[in-house]
Amino acid sequence: MYDKVLELLKEKKYSELKEMLSGMNEADIAAILTDVPEETLPLLYRILPKELAADVFVNMDSDAQEILIRAFSDTELKEVLDELYVDDAVDIIEEMPATVVKRILQHTDPNIRKSINEILKYPEDSAGSIMTIEYVDLKTYMTVDDAFTRIRRTGVDKETIYNCYVTDENRKLLGVVTAKKLLLSEKNEKIADIMETNIISTNTLEDQEIVAEKFQKYDLLAMPVVDQENRLVGIITIDDAMDVLQDENTEDIEKMAAITPTDKPYLKMNVFEIWKKRFPWLLLLMVSATFTGKIITHFEDSLQACVILTAFIPMLMDTGGNGGSQASVTVIRGLSLGDIEFKDIFKVIWKEFRVSILCGITLAAANFVKMMIIDRVTVPIALTVCLTLVFTIMLAKFVGCTLPILAKKIGFDPAVMASPFITTIVDAMSLLIYFNVAEAVLKL
Amino acid sequence: MYDKVLELLKEKKYSELKEMLSGMNEADIAAILTDVPEETLPLLYRILPKELAADVFVNMDSDAQEILIRAFSDTELKEVLDELYVDDAVDIIEEMPATVVKRILQHTDPNIRKSINEILKYPEDSAGSIMTIEYVDLKTYMTVDDAFTRIRRTGVDKETIYNCYVTDENRKLLGVVTAKKLLLSEKNEKIADIMETNIISTNTLEDQEIVAEKFQKYDLLAMPVVDQENRLVGIITIDDAMDVLQDENTEDIEKMAAITPTDKPYLKMNVFEIWKKRFPWLLLLMVSATFTGKIITHFEDSLQACVILTAFIPMLMDTGGNGGSQASVTVIRGLSLGDIEFKDIFKVIWKEFRVSILCGITLAAANFVKMMIIDRVTVPIALTVCLTLVFTIMLAKFVGCTLPILAKKIGFDPAVMASPFITTIVDAMSLLIYFNVAEAVLKL
Repeated sequence: MYDKVLELLKEKKYSELKEMLSGMNEADIAAILTDVPEETLPLLYRILPKELAADVFVNMDSDAQEILIRAFSDTELKEVLDELYVDDAVDIIEEMPATVVKRILQHTDPNIRKSINEILKYPEDSAGSIMTIEYVDLKTYMTVDDAFTRIRRTGVDKETIYNCYVTDENRKLLGVVTAKKLLLSEKNEKIADIMETNIISTNTLEDQEIVAEKFQKYDLLAMPVVDQENRLVGIITIDDAMDVLQDENTEDIEKMAAITPTDKPYLKMNVFEIWKKRFPWLLLLMVSATFTGKIITHFEDSLQACVILTAFIPMLMDTGGNGGSQASVTVIRGLSLGDIEFKDIFKVIWKEFRVSILCGITLAAANFVKMMIIDRVTVPIALTVCLTLVFTIMLAKFVGCTLPILAKKIGFDPAVMASPFITTIVDAMSLLIYFNVAEAVLKL
Repeated sequence: MYDKVLELLKEKKYSELKEMLSGMNEADIAAILTDVPEETLPLLYRILPKELAADVFVNMDSDAQEILIRAFSDTELKEVLDELYVDDAVDIIEEMPATVVKRILQHTDPNIRKSINEILKYPEDSAGSIMTIEYVDLKTYMTVDDAFTRIRRTGVDKETIYNCYVTDENRKLLGVVTAKKLLLSEKNEKIADIMETNIISTNTLEDQEIVAEKFQKYDLLAMPVVDQENRLVGIITIDDAMDVLQDENTEDIEKMAAITPTDKPYLKMNVFEIWKKRFPWLLLLMVSATFTGKIITHFEDSLQACVILTAFIPMLMDTGGNGGSQASVTVIRGLSLGDIEFKDIFKVIWKEFRVSILCGITLAAANFVKMMIIDRVTVPIALTVCLTLVFTIMLAKFVGCTLPILAKKIGFDPAVMASPFITTIVDAMSLLIYFNVAEAVLKL
């Protein structure tokens, strides 16, 4: 598809190109436009059928949008801006350099500009920052027929018309009516009689992650956003909630791998930015490994007496780390999906205790056989390693399952308590166990 | 809330309880009912206002549903089943033991039963398995007014009326009309003239993950599902797509921690089931660690000559592992979000190469200072460790960023190429580097 577009463009078959594009979905066109060489982008954009242009624009990434805005005449810019929903306009503005923002705001309708500035004031990641102000509002005294008239008159500019919000004269939120309810009601019924008053709403300052979870829990298509005085100020639609959900998942995954989370796609970040997200954690974890070094130094004499013990240190540390991460990652995900809560801590510990005994004994058995056949060590050494393995797994699973729950309880993000941290803690502990078992079994 | 409900139940204040529940959201009630003691569940469920009961039932977990179904009289069971959407009925049936399934199917309307059996035949995780067959279908020759009449007559039983599907006499999918379009069109306009023919649809056998991604890419509320002959057989709604997205994220996270993924919540799995998900990976990784052991044995003489080198093995291995997982997890997530593709492999390698030099040198500098001041080792030993650190980080980032891309290219799940595997590979490599550098620098 991409090659075909470039080919038609090169051969200057503009009308053929236009026809081809007009049969395509805006998200697909946006993907192509984001990839074309910078200098052809404005030309290609101008070929787009008018009714598609703004939708394509919204779907492009911010770099491509910036190139276009810089290439637009004032009239072109105004045309696009007039078609944008306020929340999309805010998203775009948040990514642009100051000079471009200034130019955008200059060409925005003064009322919209005021709304954009309001939304820009909400804290990042708050419900207010992702809401749109374009919703259908109804009054209690309207009939279903009145409501349809209002939807027909104002609906074309609204992001959704499927949830209509009923407010009083002070904009206080009283109820919600879905388009389904309207369509299935009699024309002369009063809104007051058919509206749902048990409303799932959110506050402008609420964390967007909690908003997204509510969408999933209550199967919503849109959620009203109210201010501290319960006045309706905007709505959040499900497409934005879904984006938040994906971003939050990415953030959790990054934290689990000891990376400072970021909204920026990997390929858009420069080397220094990536370094800044990774280096502090590597440094912290490296310095924490000092303890393991100290433990080894402390038991230097035992090691000198039985150098073969060194050969199994990596295996013990890795298996402990892996066992611990399995437990921690399971618990972290459970916490973030709401499957596990603080009150479950003893249930979790008891479960992990039994799992760790099962895992520890089966792994130790397999390892014993392997050490006798492949490594051909003496029985006491195999016993030392296998006993350590059992204790290490038990300890690793215990640490792995409790730390995330405790972290959440004291207000930290449990996702940070994943593999890297667990590994560092388990390493030190497994070495302590190893040398103590060795001294006991091998009488070093 | 939960305590209040149990209290009212204990004091037999049923009408007060009923009133309280009727003001609550069905998802919240379901959460409470899932937690109450098994013996009180049927009683509490029977107190629920009739119009809420079926919605609450759908929102409960499968254990609670099973308890209720077993407690239901035939009439009660039929009442609930009649209210269920087909896709919800299928979800419930998939979780129930055979005897319960038989009883459910016996009390289901024969037409619905036929549909349920059809859907149960689709492969797990396919679009067909999560679709519902309750959609609004229109014909090209209808007017907007006809469409409204049809929606009013049949809409109450449909999961969504906001996307209506236009089919021909052979059920072939011709177009989509949104309720918004209908509401904003003139009453006598023909469906053929206002329908959108550029349809984003999916096939019954398509992977549900790809379906969920399409919802996000195209900002859809519902997607039509067609069979191999392009006949419309059902639709998927966004709430199901969102659930799929969350499940797939959980699956990816579990794979990254070397756990076989499962749909079952952690607290519902028994110890043996958890063991089965974790043990094979631990075993595989433990056996792979044999290589690291062999490498250490091979360099035993060097180690004996300079035992202090052992003290830094854990730090080098951990830092290498952490650096490698940072790269691999970033790339795995980029691949799954579609930010990174196979064609980007050289861009990714070049970026990671520069990041790894930056990380390696800064970490080595910090480590050098630490080793001189805290560990008080000689300069050659500090140099050996720091040089190894730089090379290990470079290698770890290279392995970490290439393996997931290559895995995806040859059809494996890139998520498996996360921390545990990367760590195992990087461990062996870092030891090889370490001993070779040591022999060169320290002339062992």
